[in-house]
Parts: sequence; structure tokens; C-alpha cells
Amino acid sequence: MPFVRISLRQGTSLEYRKALADGVHRAMVEAIAIPPDDRFQVLTEHPPEALIYDPQYLGVHRSDRIVFLQITLSFGRKPQQKRKLYKRMAEILAEAAGLLPQDLLINLVETSWENWSFGNGEAQYMNS
Amino acid sequence: MPFVRISLRQGTSLEYRKALADGVHRAMVEAIAIPPDDRFQVLTEHPPEALIYDPQYLGVHRSDRIVFLQITLSFGRKPQQKRKLYKRMAEILAEAAGLLPQDLLINLVETSWENWSFGNGEAQYMNS
Amino acid sequence: MPFVRISLRQGTSLEYRKALADGVHRAMVEAIAIPPDDRFQVLTEHPPEALIYDPQYLGVHRSDRIVFLQITLSFGRKPQQKRKLYKRMAEILAEAAGLLPQDLLINLVETSWENWSFGNGEAQYMNS
Repeated sequence: MPFVRISLRQGTSLEYRKALADGVHRAMVEAIAIPPDDRFQVLTEHPPEALIYDPQYLGVHRSDRIVFLQITLSFGRKPQQKRKLYKRMAEILAEAAGLLPQDLLINLVETSWENWSFGNGEAQYMNS
Repeated sequence: MPFVRISLRQGTSLEYRKALADGVHRAMVEAIAIPPDDRFQVLTEHPPEALIYDPQYLGVHRSDRIVFLQITLSFGRKPQQKRKLYKRMAEILAEAAGLLPQDLLINLVETSWENWSFGNGEAQYMNS
Repeated sequence: MPFVRISLRQGTSLEYRKALADGVHRAMVEAIAIPPDDRFQVLTEHPPEALIYDPQYLGVHRSDRIVFLQITLSFGRKPQQKRKLYKRMAEILAEAAGLLPQDLLINLVETSWENWSFGNGEAQYMNS
């Protein structure tokens, strides 16, 4: 159910981007119990002038390797689960892709369970 | 008012993508009474490794022709209207573009009526 | 905290796109008191057939120079602040980038304060 948009600068290797996308999904499985086969991601690469970030907002020192992660998921995760998600995401992406924790920006967009169709024109999460 | 993002793999014809975008809008007009001239869409094409999907989550068999549809719209549609939207979307895209129903993933993001400006710096849907 | 997606047609100058992105941020600082260093934007350019808009919905006359602005931000802005944001956005982009006010479509997506991590795997806006 989560639908994930990963945005980063162009110029990285295919291997790096694969490690990144895999790591993002693994963190969601580990931290908030997303089913392992519930994976839908779009990764986009952008030229330098099109991916704009502040290099020090809130005292975090960001670089051109910054990754924006926008995750649309259903309501229901508690604050502590979200906190755990951010922490695990940073740990796993550092370990699996070498991403510095300060270069990871995460934004969650929450939506209703009935707001998904996973194929066949059906609302698989809707109570009948 | 809906703002629609259509994401698919690169390598399709312009004619196909046009049929797809037209069909998406037609389904919204038919199923949830969106005004015919209330149409705003962005369609993006992605290389294989950048559009990631599970080929069998929830028992739906997906292929590389998968289309991700993320629709931002105002609150107010009832569950049965959403169900109808998913069903009509799958039917129309199968008929108009040959898209297999299992290759259509839909996600709705709902927002307030006051969260739109359609030009001129005005909030056209806001009560004055 | 706002995360901004700016979508427009390809074929503009780098200088224009820079003026646009700068102007978008300035309007948010002026109209809704976003901190000046709270800036995170992705700008994407699209071929004509991939950026679809109605040229007269609600009586607003749009052209191919249309700009779609999708702003994800935390809950809490009052209707009057949103109205001010739309107005200032149109004024500033007209002045700074020459964008016609009718060519600006804005959509806000609101999310919880706890739904952000600005780096280091932390939830900087979450109450501890």
C-alpha cells in the first residue's frame, strides 16, 4: 500500500539507486510491518538546479547527495512507529547505500484505507 | 479540481499515452461527476529500473505495462463512489487503451476544498 | 517543512526556472511565515503532451506556460492564510518571472507535523 516517490540528483550509478530503493522498502518492512510484497516505487533523477534543498535547515548539514522520500500510506501508524521508521530508514540506507543520514529527507502523506486500488478495478482494502 | 499524476514505463507510443490520459479523465467524469473541463494531468515515463512494482501483491498479476495513478482530489466522495471510480477506470482503460485491469494501480489523496487555486491567485472553491 | 513540486513545460530558460523556484519560496515565506531556510523543491519539465490542462476551466484562460504547484505542508494554516498565499504567489511570480496569474495552478496537500524527518533519521517536529 505505500506508494513511494524517491527523488535524487542525476549522476549516481544504477547499483546505488537499486540499493537505495531496496533499502527504502526494507526499512518499511522492518519498522512499520509493511508486507514484503507490498512494494510500489517511482525513482526520479533530477539535474542540480531542479532539486533544491537548504544545506542547513534545523542544523542538519545536507549535500548534493540528498534524497527526498515522499511516502503515501494509509492512516494508522502511531507517532512512535513513525519515529522508528525514520530511524531505521536512515540506518539501513547508510549501511546499504552509503547515504549519510543528514542527506535523507522523509515526508509521509497519509490517506484512507479505501483510497487504494491494487488492480482489477477493485478496492482491495475497503470493507464490503 | 483533481490533479492527476500518471506514471508508466517509457517505450509506449504517443497515441497510447494519449488514450490513457483521455481515459483516466473520462472515468472521473463518468464515475464521480468531475466536470469535463476540470482536467489537469501530468504524465511521466520512467526507465524499467525506476518504476518498481510487485508482480503479485494481493494475488494480482502485474506486468511491465503497469500504470500508477495518483489522484489528488477534494474530500467528499463516499466509499461507493470511490469503488465505482476504480471499476470504471479499469473498464475504460481496458477498452480505450488496451490496459489490462491488473496493471492499474490507483491511489487517491484527499485534500480540503480550500486547498486549490485554479489561477489568478484566487481560491475559487473557498467560501468567502 | 513544505515540500514543493513544480511542474511545467520543457523549453524555458534556466534563468526563468530559477526565478520561478525562488519566487515560489519567497511567497511562502511572506504569506505563511515559512522559515527562509525551510526550502525543499523539485522542479520537473515535461513535453507538451505530458502536461495536460484545460484552457478555460472556471473561466480562467490558461496557456502552455502553465505551472502546476503542488505543496505538501503541515496542517494549521487558516483559510485566510491560504488565500493570502495564493494571492502573493501569483503576484510574486508575475513580478519575478513574468508568469501570468492565469497560468498558475496551486494545490496544497496537508499532512501531520509528525510526518517529517529533515535528516539524521529524526522526527524534528514531533513532541518527545
